[in-house]
Amino acid sequence: MNISCPAPQRSTSTIEMAHGGGGAMTARLIERVFAPYFKNPILDKRHDGAILPACDARLAFSTDTFVVNPLFFPGGNIGDLAVNGTVNDLLCCGATPRYLSAGFVIEEGTDIEMLEAIAKTMAEAAREAEVEIVTGDTKVVERGRCDGVYINTSGVGILPPDIDLGPDNLKPDDVIMITGSIANHGMAVMSKREGLDFESPITSDTASLGDITHALLSVAPGLRVLRDPTRGGLSSTLNELAEASCVDIEIDEQSIPIRVATASACDLLGLDPLYVANEGIMIAVVPPDEAETALAAIRRSAHGSDAAIIGRVLARSATPEVWLKLPFGNRRLIEMMSGEQLPRIC
Amino acid sequence: MNISCPAPQRSTSTIEMAHGGGGAMTARLIERVFAPYFKNPILDKRHDGAILPACDARLAFSTDTFVVNPLFFPGGNIGDLAVNGTVNDLLCCGATPRYLSAGFVIEEGTDIEMLEAIAKTMAEAAREAEVEIVTGDTKVVERGRCDGVYINTSGVGILPPDIDLGPDNLKPDDVIMITGSIANHGMAVMSKREGLDFESPITSDTASLGDITHALLSVAPGLRVLRDPTRGGLSSTLNELAEASCVDIEIDEQSIPIRVATASACDLLGLDPLYVANEGIMIAVVPPDEAETALAAIRRSAHGSDAAIIGRVLARSATPEVWLKLPFGNRRLIEMMSGEQLPRIC
Repeated sequence: MNISCPAPQRSTSTIEMAHGGGGAMTARLIERVFAPYFKNPILDKRHDGAILPACDARLAFSTDTFVVNPLFFPGGNIGDLAVNGTVNDLLCCGATPRYLSAGFVIEEGTDIEMLEAIAKTMAEAAREAEVEIVTGDTKVVERGRCDGVYINTSGVGILPPDIDLGPDNLKPDDVIMITGSIANHGMAVMSKREGLDFESPITSDTASLGDITHALLSVAPGLRVLRDPTRGGLSSTLNELAEASCVDIEIDEQSIPIRVATASACDLLGLDPLYVANEGIMIAVVPPDEAETALAAIRRSAHGSDAAIIGRVLARSATPEVWLKLPFGNRRLIEMMSGEQLPRIC
Repeated sequence: MNISCPAPQRSTSTIEMAHGGGGAMTARLIERVFAPYFKNPILDKRHDGAILPACDARLAFSTDTFVVNPLFFPGGNIGDLAVNGTVNDLLCCGATPRYLSAGFVIEEGTDIEMLEAIAKTMAEAAREAEVEIVTGDTKVVERGRCDGVYINTSGVGILPPDIDLGPDNLKPDDVIMITGSIANHGMAVMSKREGLDFESPITSDTASLGDITHALLSVAPGLRVLRDPTRGGLSSTLNELAEASCVDIEIDEQSIPIRVATASACDLLGLDPLYVANEGIMIAVVPPDEAETALAAIRRSAHGSDAAIIGRVLARSATPEVWLKLPFGNRRLIEMMSGEQLPRIC
C-alpha cells in the first residue's frame, strides 16, 4: 500500500498584510486571483507598465476610483462597476475604449474568494466592453483602513478624428435625450445597504454603452455631447453641461423614464430620483434635425430600449439654469446637488 | 459710519462626506484644492476624460496606488511619491512620461489644508518630471474607512521605436548597476512612523529619474533592463529579473552603496536593507562593453552620484537564483521577500 503524506501546505483564505509587501506573497496573490482572469499578452509581459501598440490617433484618458458600499448589490458588484464606469467615461469622450489599468487597495482580512469573484466579474465586463486590463497594482492596508476593497480603473481609448463631445458644445434648440430609465443603480445599492425588500427587486443598470455610442456616432454626425449621469444624478450633470455651455436647459418631468419600483423606492426613502446615481445610461444632446434618427438608433441598441427625449436647450445665458417642466404648466429650477444624498454609491 | 455686516459664510476646514457626492461641494473642493495647482489646458476642459494629441508611437501605460503611512515623511509626502512612482515606472519601460491621472480616496475629517499641501507637492513633482496631470477623480469615505488619503496615479508615456527593456532581457555576463544608495525611502518612512530620532536624519530618495534614463538610453544602446526596486527592495526585484530571464545573478555585498545612517537604522530595527523599499533609484543592466560608459553617464546625472556596479549575470538557469557575495569569499542565496518587513511603505 502506497501511503503518501504530502507536506502541509500553508493556504491562506484571507488577505494578510504581507500580501501587499511586493514579495513572494504578493506574487502568489496575483497568480491566484488576478492573472487567471485578466490574462492577455500585454499584461503577461510583467513589465513595470504595459506597452501599447502605436496608433496615430488622438487618445482619451480617464480615471475613476470605486468605493461602493456594499461591494455586491443587485445587478453587479464593484468589479463590473469599475470596468463599466471608466469604459463609459471614455465613450463619453467619443473614444473607442481599448486598455484599462486596475489598482486595488485591499483591507487586511478580506476573503480571497470574494476578491476572486470580483476579478472574475471585472474580466467578464472587460470582455463585454472589448477592452483589456493591461497593467495593475495591489496594495494592502490594515483592518479598519479600507472597507473590503477599493478599485481604481484608468483607461485609454482611441479617438477618431473630428470628434468633439466637449461639455461646452450645447447650442440653443438642441434636443436632450436619455438612453434609459433613471435612478436604478443608486436605488439598487441603497436597497441592499438598508436591507429593504421590494416586491419587484431593483437592479443596478451598470453596463458599458459601446453599442449606443457607436450607433449615435454613425447616425448623428452633429452629436454635441454624451455624458453619463453618475454621482449627483441627472440634475447635477445637466447643471454641469448648462454651465460649461452657458445655456439654459428645460426638461419635462413627465418624459423622464423611471421604473415604477425605482420611483416607489425613491418615495419611500425620501430621495429625489433626479439626484440619484446611474451607471448604465447616458445623456445625449443632438441638433433638432437629428433627434428622431438618434432616438431610434439608441432604442435599437443594447441597453437603449427605454430611451426618451426629455428636453431641450433654451437660449444662451450668462447665469445658466436648468428648469423642470411640471405636469400642469408650472416649472421649477433644479440645481446641482448641494449636499450628498447617497454616500459611496460608486 | 459704514458698518458692513457680511452674511456668515460656511467655510469648511475638513472633508465632509458631501465633498464626495459629485455635486456642488465636490466641485468647490476641486476648485479650491486641485484645480489651482494642476491647471493645464487638457485638464481645464472638464471632460469625462482627457483628450491627448495624436502621436504615432508605441505607448507605455502604468498604474500605482499609494497608501504610505505616515502621509508626510522626511524628504517628501504621498503627493510627490505618487507622481514620482508612476513616472519612474514609465521610465523603466524606456518611455518618456507625458500624462498622469490622479484618483483620490479621502477620509471624512481630513484637513483640507493638508490636502492642499499634498496637491501642491504633486504639482511640483509633475513639473520637475515634465508631465501633466490631465484627468482626476475624488471620492470620500467615512472616518475609519481610509487613512487620511490614498492616491492612485496612472500614467501614459511615449515609447521610442526599437526600445525593449522587458524583464526577460538579461544575458550571461551582463553587468548590474544601481543608480544610488539603497534603503533610504523605507528607513525615512519607518523612522518617522516609529518616532525614531537619528543623529543624521534619513530622508526619502523619492525623485523622478528622467535624467538618468535619458542619459543611459543615449550612451548605452544595448541597455537590457531598468527597474526601480520599490516594495520588496533590491533583493525582490533582482529575483524577479532572474526569474523572468531564466538566469542566475551574483551581486557583491561590499559594492552596494548604502549610507551610514541608513545602515545603522536598519541594524537598529533588525531590517535587511536589501529588502527595504527605494523610491529614487533604479537597477540598470547593460552588456559588459557598455558598463563603464553607462556608469559614468549615470554618475553625471541628477540623483546618480552614488551609482555603482554591484554585480553581474551568471549563466542561464532553469532554477534562477540570486547570490550575494560576502566579504571573505563566501556567498549566500538571497530570495524574494517572503513576508512583509515594512507595511504601507509606498
